[in-house]
Amino acid sequence: MRLVIIGGVAAGLSAASRARRQDASIEILVLEKSERISYAACGLPYFLEGQVRSLDQLRVYTPEFFEKERNIRIRTGAAVAAISHPRREVTLESGERVRYDRLILATGARRPQQDPAAFSIDTWDQTARLSQHLEQAKLRSAAIIGGGYLGLEAAGALRTRGLRVTICEAGSDLLGRQDSWLTAKLVQHLERFRIEVRLDTKQVPAADVTVLAHGLRPNTLLAEGAGIECGRTGAIRVTERMETNLTGVYAAGDCAETTHLVTGRPVWLPLGTTANRTGRVAGACAAGGRNRFPGIVGSSIVRVCGLAVGVTGLSPRQARAENFDPVSVEIEAFEKARYFGGRPCQVQLTADRRSGRLLGAAVLGEDGVSGRIGIAAAALHQRMSAEDFSELDLAYAPPYGTLPDPLMIGARQLLKLLH
Amino acid sequence: MRLVIIGGVAAGLSAASRARRQDASIEILVLEKSERISYAACGLPYFLEGQVRSLDQLRVYTPEFFEKERNIRIRTGAAVAAISHPRREVTLESGERVRYDRLILATGARRPQQDPAAFSIDTWDQTARLSQHLEQAKLRSAAIIGGGYLGLEAAGALRTRGLRVTICEAGSDLLGRQDSWLTAKLVQHLERFRIEVRLDTKQVPAADVTVLAHGLRPNTLLAEGAGIECGRTGAIRVTERMETNLTGVYAAGDCAETTHLVTGRPVWLPLGTTANRTGRVAGACAAGGRNRFPGIVGSSIVRVCGLAVGVTGLSPRQARAENFDPVSVEIEAFEKARYFGGRPCQVQLTADRRSGRLLGAAVLGEDGVSGRIGIAAAALHQRMSAEDFSELDLAYAPPYGTLPDPLMIGARQLLKLLH
Repeated sequence: MRLVIIGGVAAGLSAASRARRQDASIEILVLEKSERISYAACGLPYFLEGQVRSLDQLRVYTPEFFEKERNIRIRTGAAVAAISHPRREVTLESGERVRYDRLILATGARRPQQDPAAFSIDTWDQTARLSQHLEQAKLRSAAIIGGGYLGLEAAGALRTRGLRVTICEAGSDLLGRQDSWLTAKLVQHLERFRIEVRLDTKQVPAADVTVLAHGLRPNTLLAEGAGIECGRTGAIRVTERMETNLTGVYAAGDCAETTHLVTGRPVWLPLGTTANRTGRVAGACAAGGRNRFPGIVGSSIVRVCGLAVGVTGLSPRQARAENFDPVSVEIEAFEKARYFGGRPCQVQLTADRRSGRLLGAAVLGEDGVSGRIGIAAAALHQRMSAEDFSELDLAYAPPYGTLPDPLMIGARQLLKLLH
Repeated sequence: MRLVIIGGVAAGLSAASRARRQDASIEILVLEKSERISYAACGLPYFLEGQVRSLDQLRVYTPEFFEKERNIRIRTGAAVAAISHPRREVTLESGERVRYDRLILATGARRPQQDPAAFSIDTWDQTARLSQHLEQAKLRSAAIIGGGYLGLEAAGALRTRGLRVTICEAGSDLLGRQDSWLTAKLVQHLERFRIEVRLDTKQVPAADVTVLAHGLRPNTLLAEGAGIECGRTGAIRVTERMETNLTGVYAAGDCAETTHLVTGRPVWLPLGTTANRTGRVAGACAAGGRNRFPGIVGSSIVRVCGLAVGVTGLSPRQARAENFDPVSVEIEAFEKARYFGGRPCQVQLTADRRSGRLLGAAVLGEDGVSGRIGIAAAALHQRMSAEDFSELDLAYAPPYGTLPDPLMIGARQLLKLLH
């Protein structure tokens, strides 16, 4: 049995490793179009910023590691041109044909709008190119196209390097969250760092360097050519076992859609966390396991000029669009005891008026944001009511929090509006 | 309607404030035996250590605040000698009688073993006394009696002040957790800071100063005299509405027992978090509300010489004692990306082999411990299975975590043992 995996970054390699654990005997081959596999793509902005000194620090495993330690064959520079499922084979751009029994697509996302003069931080190579450009030329200004998390990370990194930075976002919100409260807080914070934010604009200002961080789409070109169906999100439709409409062909990571556990509907949210998780399920199932991927609740966190911004579930506006009757609160509270240097953090909680169910959370602050988003995410996974959420037994000590916790202060305010 | 509350620290004042919000018209009187109300008792070790410069920083609200802003009458220096429920009155030590319609006991915990030559950090006054003693005399060595969280905090504080410190614990475990893995990790850490730990000992070594941090018991003296029943834990037995066996008499905080949501059985765990929460429910119910306190899952966190140590739910040994069939894993993983200074943290997860249910977690590390304990606590509240727990959609970015999260690495290991 030969398992072929197209794509050798997060989802593809999670799938390969998990498939090997599932079955020690099958043949596993990973085809990666670039020359590099297994690097921490989420770390690229921090290389640009200077926190990561060398791109090599972002390398996770070498092809040799996979071959020797996990008996997984890796071919880099192996771009797939087409899939023929009736013949159970893929054709490389070189013309070579590779047979498979099971296939996993981990083709990631792509940026349809390309501009050879512009830069991006999507991949290792593109980030290296931008970094070299910054070192060679004396650049003073940067335009970042797109106000999603990649755009904000790029903006922060270039501002840290001393450039004048403008973020241009075609929509009216940052982070793609449909949340004017969150957008306003972020704009305020960015402006404090003298990063200009232009919303509702498609005009690109003149700048020494332009970074494209908008319009990311699932890379479904190969899939579509092979008769693999996409869902309404535009990403590959999969079952709970990450299987496509073609038996024995799986998809994972940024090219696949998943289920949003709050809405119960398909969603496309390209994130490393989901790539890792869906890759594992696809790998296990392709190798004969019975695993399933339940879905996501939409958790993410990003650092924006030192501020941690975390979200999970739905914003009030997203909740309304999903036919909930949202009630939300925004509160400010200290993240930990003031004598431990605690500073204010912002918490937004959203619940459904009809069912009382918690629907989403956003937290802005420092080190405590990640954990608080995780707590809200665990509640969303279990469809917890706002009332039960307000009764969570959280751990408290002055170096690490406050009593009551900012999340609980928010939850109690929310309950007053629900009753 | 007059509500009388005995005790003016965490539970008592939470109750008073919540009762006032429930009903603007009732009369509320708080009787506090000491001269001080409303201070952050959890901050006392940090005053001893020097992180908190003055005890005044730990004052939360003044009696005047309660009187003026919340119309709550506070009497300090008002020690209650007896309760006569048939007459609906309490008698102060001065002989004065105070009538009530509803009564809340928030009498806290006490330390039956007293030694006038020894010190403690239980209260503001006792901590002030120890601090003065340290400043006046040239002390070189300290013996801490008790290896619970107060003992560890006192040990850390005195070590920071340069004393040679020995912790003497009568039982075989630290933190009262019945967990030899956790105890071994803690002993190793304490010894790195040259704090000596003696387990299974009742002998107190000769030292310049002795700090009592053991044998804390619910303070039920008044309750017992009034015919208020205690449970098997020794603390006052209460309903979900925090009402005792006497109608109209409530108990909250360290003097009351609560329900452990993992075992479903009564438990006595004196913590500020629980005092705050039970106080609110008692206050609301005493003032006519229909609130209920569902219980706790046993979450706590403590800083031990810079190490964050958090626990929730049951340890493997505690789980066995509660007739579960525990399976547990201990893993080490980085708390955040190494290029953000991430350091290893330790995670222990315990599940029930028969039901697959998650039973408990312990995490040792730095800033991320508190949130990870909260995530596990949220899962315990909902009786989540280890399998569902391993599928949590947590937020990830390199400055704040790793992918997969240490909790998820642990959960996946745990699943392998369960299947």
